[in-house]
Order: sequence, then structure tokens, then C-alpha cells
Amino acid sequence: MPDSDICFIPATEQARMVRNGDISAVELMGVHLDQIERVNPAVNAVVTLVADEALAVAAEADRAQASGGELGPLHGLPAGIKDLVATAGIRTTMGSPIYTDNVPDADADIVTRMKSAGAIVLGKTNTPEFGAGSQTFNQVFGATLNPYDTSRTCGGSSGGSGVGLACGMFPTTVGTDLGGSLRNPAAWSNVVGLRPSPGRVPSAGALPWTSMSTAGPMGRTVADVALMLSVQAGPDPLVPSSLQDDPARFSDSLGRDFTGVRIAWSRDLGGRPIEPVQTEVLDAQRHVFEGIGCIVVDAEPDLSESDSVFQVLRAYSFAHGQEQNLINHRDQLKDTVIWNVEEGLALSALDVAKAEEMRTELFGRMIAFFDEYDFLALPVTSVPPFSVDIPYPIVVNGVKMETYIDWMWPCADITVIACPAISVPAGFTPDGLPVGLQLVSAPRTDFELLQLAHAFEGATEFWKQRPGVVE
Amino acid sequence: MPDSDICFIPATEQARMVRNGDISAVELMGVHLDQIERVNPAVNAVVTLVADEALAVAAEADRAQASGGELGPLHGLPAGIKDLVATAGIRTTMGSPIYTDNVPDADADIVTRMKSAGAIVLGKTNTPEFGAGSQTFNQVFGATLNPYDTSRTCGGSSGGSGVGLACGMFPTTVGTDLGGSLRNPAAWSNVVGLRPSPGRVPSAGALPWTSMSTAGPMGRTVADVALMLSVQAGPDPLVPSSLQDDPARFSDSLGRDFTGVRIAWSRDLGGRPIEPVQTEVLDAQRHVFEGIGCIVVDAEPDLSESDSVFQVLRAYSFAHGQEQNLINHRDQLKDTVIWNVEEGLALSALDVAKAEEMRTELFGRMIAFFDEYDFLALPVTSVPPFSVDIPYPIVVNGVKMETYIDWMWPCADITVIACPAISVPAGFTPDGLPVGLQLVSAPRTDFELLQLAHAFEGATEFWKQRPGVVE
Repeated sequence: MPDSDICFIPATEQARMVRNGDISAVELMGVHLDQIERVNPAVNAVVTLVADEALAVAAEADRAQASGGELGPLHGLPAGIKDLVATAGIRTTMGSPIYTDNVPDADADIVTRMKSAGAIVLGKTNTPEFGAGSQTFNQVFGATLNPYDTSRTCGGSSGGSGVGLACGMFPTTVGTDLGGSLRNPAAWSNVVGLRPSPGRVPSAGALPWTSMSTAGPMGRTVADVALMLSVQAGPDPLVPSSLQDDPARFSDSLGRDFTGVRIAWSRDLGGRPIEPVQTEVLDAQRHVFEGIGCIVVDAEPDLSESDSVFQVLRAYSFAHGQEQNLINHRDQLKDTVIWNVEEGLALSALDVAKAEEMRTELFGRMIAFFDEYDFLALPVTSVPPFSVDIPYPIVVNGVKMETYIDWMWPCADITVIACPAISVPAGFTPDGLPVGLQLVSAPRTDFELLQLAHAFEGATEFWKQRPGVVE
Repeated sequence: MPDSDICFIPATEQARMVRNGDISAVELMGVHLDQIERVNPAVNAVVTLVADEALAVAAEADRAQASGGELGPLHGLPAGIKDLVATAGIRTTMGSPIYTDNVPDADADIVTRMKSAGAIVLGKTNTPEFGAGSQTFNQVFGATLNPYDTSRTCGGSSGGSGVGLACGMFPTTVGTDLGGSLRNPAAWSNVVGLRPSPGRVPSAGALPWTSMSTAGPMGRTVADVALMLSVQAGPDPLVPSSLQDDPARFSDSLGRDFTGVRIAWSRDLGGRPIEPVQTEVLDAQRHVFEGIGCIVVDAEPDLSESDSVFQVLRAYSFAHGQEQNLINHRDQLKDTVIWNVEEGLALSALDVAKAEEMRTELFGRMIAFFDEYDFLALPVTSVPPFSVDIPYPIVVNGVKMETYIDWMWPCADITVIACPAISVPAGFTPDGLPVGLQLVSAPRTDFELLQLAHAFEGATEFWKQRPGVVE
């Protein structure tokens, strides 16, 4: 097997190989470093590389293993961390020129958990400025390109993580998702991204009670994502909203019989704009669910108000996070961030309360919906990957977009309802661009969601397709 | 035993008597109706009585028992429901002239759970207008009087429930608590009130993610409160913030060895105003904890900012709840409610976000505090029951109060930190007025909190004292 092929072995299997002594952590790190050196210049996914540090930690991991130490489930696996997520001693720019030289003292909680499980931070992956917008470009590092067509965007905001996985530059990653940032880039790099239930992967953020943002895993396979979730999830005493379930569940086998399970098949959430090519690619996969025994029914949940709820709560969170930067560094912020912060600063407390009230109403509607259906299937994106030269699509299937986030409705609407959602590879457009299917399940049923995604993946095997840029 | 003595038997024991056939549900309802007829005119705690309906349900309960049906844990027990809490088919005024004739179609969730467990709604208990302020008076029904001194207030806002328990008018109650409304009236009626952990007793309210309000139980003994919590608690799929723990835990024995357990003894949270008589009464009970083996240490958690957080989040919630009433019925709102709504309407979204951020900081501080101490003990109120002729105390130990809620700092500050808190009877002032001790524990440790309160109650037996008005 050529070294670069090792890089495309699933993380679950790479972990087994290290544990069995088939490959050392140092060797595994070496082949990934070679892969980054070879492929990254074409896609610009890894923006900060800590090769020496990673090799030193890998050598330490090998010594620990040789002396019979207890090995974590990710022992020796290289990890790419989204540059929005703090890493101790490693530059974390958040894609903003204001933070070009920012080196955090401490790891974010999710990084601590990944490292405790044996993962080794190899580098930081590109993100739009403050994660704003699902197009991974910024003034610090430029744009990350789609590995299936480098004239197009890889999506975002965890764009560098998605591309890094797709190109075999690392087997495990960390991302975050407010309005689709774990799902959109997964879809467009033909990998898997899970937005966990709120509180599943706790973040010690400032707004734990209302934040719609969550950290979470991306991987090349659903089982890889489950493995990462098993170390990223679990209660945190410092996060009041964290779920108390034992994360060991996510290490269980994902196999399950789906006979008779009811899938709601949504094309456009009842009339939102979507490019026909997206619908065509996804419709062609509907039979896969029938093939594993599911009953697939056309059904559109009523999420009419979720767009306005999302806009308010997103602006609220931007105002809180970026008010000081707007005051002190306005000239270093991109227009869309300025707009989003100013929208938030113009909101009253009552606006937020009314958005919260409507969010609760939508949550209740989805509980009723999931009494009738076991899962919801819908697109991840309303368009295929667009030109890397534009910040966002202006028009979707003839409908003009009012803001830079409108086109992200398939992810944003699902964010609002506080259910877990996963993006799984579901085929390619006639131009060879990846398309993601979004599966959604009832609150807190992350494991059941992984099971369904795993069954779909097993029946389709789109994940085995590699992007042209790695050949 | 005179009939009225039956009314002072703990709810746990009354339930056993009904189950064993020592008394029928109809007989038990009858003695409580007699007690209400005899005592209520002196205190004005029960504002709507549904005697015929309650007797009919009791007769049905007796028939079900006779035919061998499954009996709920509260089978046949009369219940007083705070008039802020919706009861299907029973007038629910919320203490507001706007709602004098309001008859809800549906029960609030907590009422549904009480009824499912076999409790029988006997009447509605008085509350201040919209529960605002810890003095139970309103334009609809007037004031509820303290049964230990009818020239004084019973506190609030679950004032009618506290007095009803103290006077043997019912064995079980439902209350709610935003800034102390389950704790303050319990303290001043010499009964027990538990503010559960947020999400423990789920309410399908409009702001489940941020609301500081919770429903919960009051009772004459800690075991009674635990019994009620065992039916009021438990996950609700419609409430995203609800805790997932099995509520059966609250039916377990409350006995426990407290040797070596560390109690932080707080007199004034580091300098808040409090009347010396309150401190003196509570200090006299400190030895009780030492007597059961605890280590009691003077310690004041740093909650300096919690007052401003409470004011902002309370005003936010008032603005949301009462905006329409302010627009349409301003002349029917009391001044303090108008003030609180207008405070809320003047808030920006960023004000709310900053309050939330500080609340998270305070939560983190308390997690650290509870690493060092197992429990926190502090006063429930800064003053003894004051004259029923004033809406709130203007001065506490020489310090002028700026708003109508400032004097409630011992409860409000604890609300902010999202920990469970209980008020237990802790003695009397030289004037014979009841004083409550507030015990607080780490997030979600409601059961451990009940255990400590139970041990204190067993060693002191203040609960056996009956108010003068019932003699």
C-alpha cells in the first residue's frame, strides 16, 4: 500500500492499526505530514502546521504504548482543529486579522477531550472570519478550495476540516456549527459532519443557556464520527445545559434493522428555494432507504418561522461576541460580520424573547412531527459548491437572497429546532460536485441518527470516492 | 383524634392512611373542607374553592380503590394550587383584575402530574398580581395573612399555598419560584419549600432556555416535599431543558449519615443587608449540623454581581409576559408590575446577553465553591414577616431598598446560580414569627439537598409547631 493510501483508511481502522502495533504513531504522523505537504498547496485547508510538536507527542505516545500504558480510543491519531477553536500554545486566528498573532493559553474543552483520548493536534484548519458564512475565506489565509473542483468553494465554516479529511490530511477533526458549519462543508467535501444535540458536546461558552452554536465531529465515515463523538460528548459540570448521558453509547456497534422505520422525505421544507440539481441527486437515493426496509413518505415539517428566529438569535450571539471588535477594530472586520453585529445591537430584549418563544413553538412542532416519523431527510445545501470568487450565492433557483446566510436555510432551519443532524455523502452532480443528504432525528437521539446514517453509507459507499486533487 | 388533627398529619402518612383504608378519600376531603371553613376566613389563603367537584373526584377515587385499581402515590390527597398556575375548568386569576373571570381549558403540566398521581384539586391559593413581589396581596382577593401574626404578611408569591399548609387546609400544594416564591412563604409559614434544579419540574413555558422560573412543591415536612417532587419531576419531551433523570429517586428513604460533610455557613453573602434578629435565630441552629456530624465553616460565596443579573433577567421575563397587558390594560396593573415591565422593555438584546454571560460566570464560581463545600446554608429572608399594610420593606437594617425586590436578595441571588434550594423551618423570633433556613447544593443534587434538610428537620422538629390562628 502506498503511504498516501494509509491516509484514506478510516480513523477507526487507523486507531486499531496503531493499537495493534501495525504502525507507530510517529509513522502515522509522518505519512499525514507527507500528505499535507503534497496536497495542501492545492487546497489551502491547513493554515497552521505544528509538525515538530506533533511528531514529539507521537514519539511520546509510542513510548507510552511500549511501556504498557493505558491507550485512549484515539491513541496516536493526528487531528485537525478548526481555527475558530482555541488550542493551547498554537496560533488561533479565528480567520480574523485582529487575531493574527493570537496564541491561547488553554485548549477549548473539545480539544482537551480529544487530546485526553490520545489524538495529537497536527494543525489548524481554515475558517471564515469568526466562522461567519459558509464560504471558507478570510483576509489572513485566503480561501480554502474545493478538492473536487478547486475553482469552487469548499463551504464552511468548518471548511478546512472538511477538505483536510477529504484529502487524507488527517483522520480526525474538530469543528463547530451554528448555522450549518459542520454539515455544509462535510456535504461539499464528500465527508460526514454531525451537528450533535445541544449540550451533547458541551462548550464552556458565555451563553450556554441560549447559544445555538455547538462543537462536534467531522469524519470520513459515520463510524469515525461516532468514535470521535464518544470522546467529545459527555457531561461537563461547568456547562449547565450539558446532557448527562454516558458517551460510551457512541462506541457501540452502529448496526441495526431498519424495517418499518418511517422516514419523512423533505425536498424543500415546503417551498424554500433550491436548485433542481440538488433535488435530483438526492431523489435518486430515496430508494436506498426503501432498500433497507424503511417506509419513505413525502412530508414537509412546518418550519415557516424558523428563518426569522435564526436571524434574531444569530445576530444576538454576534452582537455579544463581536461588540468590542466592532468598537475597536471596525476597519478589520468584513462587511457581513459588521452587518450581523449591527443587526444584533439593534435588537431589543423583547425581540430575543419573542424569538425564543417561537423557537419553543417550533421545537414543540418537531416533537409532534417525530411522533409520526422516526427521521427527517432533507438537503444539506440549496445549491452545489459555487465559485470561490463570490462570498455567497445571490440567487437560488431564481429567488434573490436578502442576506449572506439565507441560502443556508436547510441547515439553519434545523439548527433552530434543537435536534441532532448529520450530513452524509449522497452522490455527485453531473459536474462531479459532492451533494450531502441531511438526516435529522428527535432531540437527544444522536445514536439512532448515527445508526441510520451508517446504514445509508453502507448501502451507497460514496465515502470511498476520493477527490481529484489527491490523485 | 379530633378531625382537625388529621389535617396536620404529614402528607406521606395521610397517603398511607387512605391506601390502608383507615380513612376514605371523601372523609379526608371532608375534614380538610371543614378546616378551610373554620380557618380560612382568618387568613384568606384559599381564594377559589371547588368543594363539590373535589368531593365528587374523591368519591370516584374511593370507588377506584374499592375495585382494586392501581393507586397513585398521592391517591386521595387534597391539593391547593397556586392561583398563578392554570387549572382546567377552575378560575385562575393570577391575582390580576384582568383575569378575574379567566377559566383555563387545560391544566398546567405540574397539575396534570399531581392529578395523575392521585391528588385532588380542592382550591386555588392566593398569589400577588402575576406573582410579582413576595407579599401576597392583590386587587382581586386582598391580602393573605400570616397565621402566626395576622397583622403581618405571609410572604409570597406562593403565599396562599404556604399558609394553607401551615393551617392544615391541605396536605399537598403546587407553587412556583422565580425570585424566592417557593422559599420565602415557606419560611414565613413555618413549612418547607423546595426550588428544584432548573428543568427538574419541567414547565412548558415560552422561554424554557432562559427562564429562571420553576414550578415546585411545598409541604409541611421534607418527606412530604420529596413525595410531591417524585410525581412533579421527570423529563418532558416538550421541554428542551428538562432533566432526564428518573424521578423515582425522590421516593427513596431520605436517611443518610452526614459525618464529615462540609457546610458553608453564610450570614449575609458577604455584606448584604439583613436584620440582626434573622442572623441570631439562624446562628442558634448551627450546632444542629455539627450535632449530626457536619463540619460547619464560615464561608461567603462571591455572588456580588448576581443582583444585577437577576434584575435584568427578571425584567426580560416580565417584558415578555406582560407587554400586551401593559399596552391594553395598564390601568389594571399595579405600579411595581408596570415598573418591572417597563424596565424589561428598555433592555437591549446585548443587556440580556451580558446578564447571561455573568450568570454563567457565577454558575462556574458556584461549581468551584461546591468542590470545597458540600452544602451552603444561608437565610431565606433578610427580614421577619413585615406589616401586611406595606407592599415591601423600604429599609433593611438601615439600608434603603431601591426596588420592591431588593430585600429578597437571599433567594434571588440563589435563583441566579441555577442550583436547587430549600427553605426549612429553623425557629422563631422573640415575637414568635417563623424564620427559614435556606440550604443550597450543587446543580442537580436535589435528592442530596432533601436528605440534609430532612436530617435538620428531624433534629429540630420545628415543623410540629402550629400557628396560633388554628387553635
